[in-house]
Amino acid sequence: MKFGSRPARSILAYQSKARVHIVDQTQLPFRVEERTLTTWEQCAEAIRAMRVRGAPLIGVTAAYGMALAATRDATDAALREARQALLATRPTAVNLQWALDRMARKLDTTDPAERADAAWSEASAIEAEDIETNRTIGEHGLALLRVLHEKLQRPINVLTHCNAGRMACVEWGTATAPIYLAKESGIPVHVWVEETRPRNQGLLTQWELENAEIDHTYIVDNAGGHLMQQGKVDIVFVGADRVSLKGDVANKIGTYLKALAAKDCKVPFYAAVPLSTIDVRINSLDGVEIEERAGDEIRLIRGLSREDRVIDLRLLDANVNVANPGFDVTPAKLVTGIITEAGVFTPKELTPFLKARMI
Amino acid sequence: MKFGSRPARSILAYQSKARVHIVDQTQLPFRVEERTLTTWEQCAEAIRAMRVRGAPLIGVTAAYGMALAATRDATDAALREARQALLATRPTAVNLQWALDRMARKLDTTDPAERADAAWSEASAIEAEDIETNRTIGEHGLALLRVLHEKLQRPINVLTHCNAGRMACVEWGTATAPIYLAKESGIPVHVWVEETRPRNQGLLTQWELENAEIDHTYIVDNAGGHLMQQGKVDIVFVGADRVSLKGDVANKIGTYLKALAAKDCKVPFYAAVPLSTIDVRINSLDGVEIEERAGDEIRLIRGLSREDRVIDLRLLDANVNVANPGFDVTPAKLVTGIITEAGVFTPKELTPFLKARMI
Repeated sequence: MKFGSRPARSILAYQSKARVHIVDQTQLPFRVEERTLTTWEQCAEAIRAMRVRGAPLIGVTAAYGMALAATRDATDAALREARQALLATRPTAVNLQWALDRMARKLDTTDPAERADAAWSEASAIEAEDIETNRTIGEHGLALLRVLHEKLQRPINVLTHCNAGRMACVEWGTATAPIYLAKESGIPVHVWVEETRPRNQGLLTQWELENAEIDHTYIVDNAGGHLMQQGKVDIVFVGADRVSLKGDVANKIGTYLKALAAKDCKVPFYAAVPLSTIDVRINSLDGVEIEERAGDEIRLIRGLSREDRVIDLRLLDANVNVANPGFDVTPAKLVTGIITEAGVFTPKELTPFLKARMI
Repeated sequence: MKFGSRPARSILAYQSKARVHIVDQTQLPFRVEERTLTTWEQCAEAIRAMRVRGAPLIGVTAAYGMALAATRDATDAALREARQALLATRPTAVNLQWALDRMARKLDTTDPAERADAAWSEASAIEAEDIETNRTIGEHGLALLRVLHEKLQRPINVLTHCNAGRMACVEWGTATAPIYLAKESGIPVHVWVEETRPRNQGLLTQWELENAEIDHTYIVDNAGGHLMQQGKVDIVFVGADRVSLKGDVANKIGTYLKALAAKDCKVPFYAAVPLSTIDVRINSLDGVEIEERAGDEIRLIRGLSREDRVIDLRLLDANVNVANPGFDVTPAKLVTGIITEAGVFTPKELTPFLKARMI
């Protein structure tokens, strides 16, 4: 896919097997700073400092970190050191652990002389699988947009919350994948991009869509319900951090409010996720623990000063009490469907499909 | 009522009948700058520059502007000039027109030699009536908090959106009046203060509550629904810009989303308004025109720099499309009750009460 004059991907490994290219996301969307990583230590730093973010992208970056490690020194001791350091960067990231485990299985069963090549191949496979999963999610979501477009015969208004976009993944994103494919397929789409306080990930989504030349309008989170009341939203696409067996959706704080409005206004509401995000061990997300994040995410805000510098502005004194739950749970009763690489499932269809798959 | 070491009121006329004291709200909550107005021109400037804001406060400031005008020159020509200039400051503000009409009726029927005294008395009466209306709204809301407290025997968690507080009025506010009275009555209350993007009026509410030493926690708008799901909200109090005969509520954008969550989570949802805010000519607010406000309210954000200066930071380029509806409509079906100076009415009770009152 194209991405204007910007790099086509959040991460790109060069053929030379000596370096990996990323966009420094701590500066987005205010600055597009590209970085070249040539050591596993630089990969670790990029993950720790959140220069790369989003579960899939963290996993891929760590995998390439292991490839860089194996290129420099393929001994067991050196690889163990790199693996442990990479794992420690974001200890709770499930994809990070998963990618490093997969790399370790490959490296452990490969002769040291062949480990560098094997590691680059395996990292590249992880990357390619992520792209393919997201593209397939996009195809299934695209079918929904196509039906709406055939019915309404006008541009389809999609509302999205947070950034379940390409910069959290390698390409396509999850909630955004159907939108990018609609663009390629000639189905006209307009996207309502929600700001997504407190971290304003809507700025990333806006930046992505602008670079992909997709029609969009930026709104504050408060406006999404009103737009649905006015008939200005045809479908809601969000990502998810976790989906339960019966179709409860844990996603960025505020998602629940949009699902309520969608139900009230008869707007279909979908979460787009890889099957790996569905936690089949849990039926319902009722009472699941929600991460309480740092209060300074609310007290401070990042933007561009008049002198064009990226700075943090203070909105609230450090002594003001704030509460900052990072996620909320949208109960399955408000969810029209879950879009996965295996197809689109209503919450009722989801449980039997997942149970059949486990057997 | 007390207000820490801060001025007890958003506006205060001195006994000398020569000056009026305000807090410059353009600097709130980052700076508390008090100003003394000694001419009607300064009153007009304060309204135009939004140093005073909120329908009731604008009306009272304009009334004192006429008093200052009559003190300097009580001729018909001079008063006409002052009135027209004051009216032009915020041409769509209903309370401004209403207050100036009332002052004109008084001045027109008074001998020029007595106009100055008459004008100060009339402005003072308008001010006193606003305080009394809000205090009475507060008493009716307090009864709701008292019932909850007797039942739950713990601090009552109130959620509020935007600033329907004392700084929009002379004292008490509307949605905040029951909270201030609860404090005076010894009923423990904790307030969830919503940020209220894009203009962040939650900062004003936070500042008010801090100065009144009322327990509170600041949250982003996205978090309110999640807190209700978690049982952490006992009651929602909001203000309103307009209420219809059947109890539809037009209020700050995002109010509808909180009303949906309140309904879903069985949390009572009340709008607190003076009867003058109820538009008895309109049964429903379906399809009412909603003000589209400036995009720069979203693209820019005001806060304190590291050097402690009040500055605007850019979040989005000027060329990014934004939509900024200022208000939304909460349908009566989601409203538990309307708190007025005449008592609390369910939407079903509201219409017969208002019709009886009109006869």
